[in-house]
Amino acid sequence: MADTVRSRLLVTPGAKFLFSRRDPDDKLGWEKEAAKAELIEVKAKITEIQYRLAAESKQALLVVVQATDASGKDGVIRNVFSGISAAGVKVSGFKAPVGDETHHDFLWRVHRVVPAHGEIGVWNRSHYEDVLVVRVKNFVPKAQWEKRYRHIREFERLLVDEGTTIVKINLHISQDEQRQRLQDRIDDSTEGWKFRLGDLDDRKLWPEFMKAYEVAFNETSLAEAPWYVVPANRKWVRDLAVARIVLATLQDMDPRIPPPDPAIVGVTVV
Amino acid sequence: MADTVRSRLLVTPGAKFLFSRRDPDDKLGWEKEAAKAELIEVKAKITEIQYRLAAESKQALLVVVQATDASGKDGVIRNVFSGISAAGVKVSGFKAPVGDETHHDFLWRVHRVVPAHGEIGVWNRSHYEDVLVVRVKNFVPKAQWEKRYRHIREFERLLVDEGTTIVKINLHISQDEQRQRLQDRIDDSTEGWKFRLGDLDDRKLWPEFMKAYEVAFNETSLAEAPWYVVPANRKWVRDLAVARIVLATLQDMDPRIPPPDPAIVGVTVV
Repeated sequence: MADTVRSRLLVTPGAKFLFSRRDPDDKLGWEKEAAKAELIEVKAKITEIQYRLAAESKQALLVVVQATDASGKDGVIRNVFSGISAAGVKVSGFKAPVGDETHHDFLWRVHRVVPAHGEIGVWNRSHYEDVLVVRVKNFVPKAQWEKRYRHIREFERLLVDEGTTIVKINLHISQDEQRQRLQDRIDDSTEGWKFRLGDLDDRKLWPEFMKAYEVAFNETSLAEAPWYVVPANRKWVRDLAVARIVLATLQDMDPRIPPPDPAIVGVTVV
Repeated sequence: MADTVRSRLLVTPGAKFLFSRRDPDDKLGWEKEAAKAELIEVKAKITEIQYRLAAESKQALLVVVQATDASGKDGVIRNVFSGISAAGVKVSGFKAPVGDETHHDFLWRVHRVVPAHGEIGVWNRSHYEDVLVVRVKNFVPKAQWEKRYRHIREFERLLVDEGTTIVKINLHISQDEQRQRLQDRIDDSTEGWKFRLGDLDDRKLWPEFMKAYEVAFNETSLAEAPWYVVPANRKWVRDLAVARIVLATLQDMDPRIPPPDPAIVGVTVV
């Protein structure tokens, strides 16, 4: 369904994406109080369509949330998807691979947890780590990671061709906003658990990470599996923008509640 | 490593494959007793390389065995792979999808069980069912199954690029040999359990199945993931041919036992 916000935040397939052309402070024309009220309405609509999606059980929605440290991945997933059927929404997080995960191709661990028909899958980080941190820090040779863009495109096409709709969301914060949020984590005793010293090492590589994100978007924003870059310096803008993208996508999917089995017509329960 | 049998049985990538150009009675120039003795030697060599593969733990071997009813899939897997480390060989069978499997893309269930680095995976039937029986019996629309050849190619390329070597083996029997084997199953009280009435329905579709196999081979025999069509009317030919293909492939992979950790040099256990 047409949603001007969704099309505005799209990384247009085939066009070159640059972060410098997007403003992480963008309010998208919204006011804070009205946006918070609209978020409640949008979530109610998502909840209604999720019910139809589960009843139909013929298609799935995968929402990939991939973004830098302190950009609000946990927050947006909590604020947009909490309250929607827990049985119908499956959140999966992907940290640095361990154990069995390190002994398989990079798509193995994500393929295992793709949403089944009828489900909404939400990924907190994803297979894109394998062309982001892995690329920036040379965890595997270039000859290996440079082939992964194609493997990602084809893997996502597979999911689409077999009934899954995919939206990929990046939360765009400025380097200074990240500095402030990391400092807050250090200074606030209740937020300190989120902080690892290694986060500062990653922060030193900010330009390299942003470049890796841009390459990933340009390589993998497909018409059938698009990227959206959401301004995320303001949490209330971020939340409503993501909710609107999810709602518009679900409206396009338009799941239908199946008709009853004709055999039950006229049956009397005794 | 060069093996004339392996190259003779290869479905050459890019060339058009036709069953009519292959003889399922072919003895490949072998004599029965000598072939049985050679099989023992070939298995000993496979066992030695499998040990190195597990120790190295950097690459995997996937052997896909895909063939029609009564062609000897169970038999060849038993005769070639039994006796090799059970911990290092993982056999997976794929029947008609059930439960969760029916609610995911067709590659989901196979991707979950691909061999980890250090392992040999052997598949009794495979993701090719989804372009064979599914195509012949129209289990999904053509618009869906015709895209699956590409998805299979790209999925297999993914595995290869990430450290798995793939060989795909078809056991080629004649229509009359199948008739005899199915009749034997019916007539032999100890073999009757293998027989389903539905096998006769599939047998009626023999030309359609053979055509679907030919298309699958032509679409998916890649230099990096080749098909081999093995003459299988004679079980002793079939067994040695498959063992030779597996051995030559493992010799090409040439896994190496890793050197000891330098830190353990000079350590005295007290």
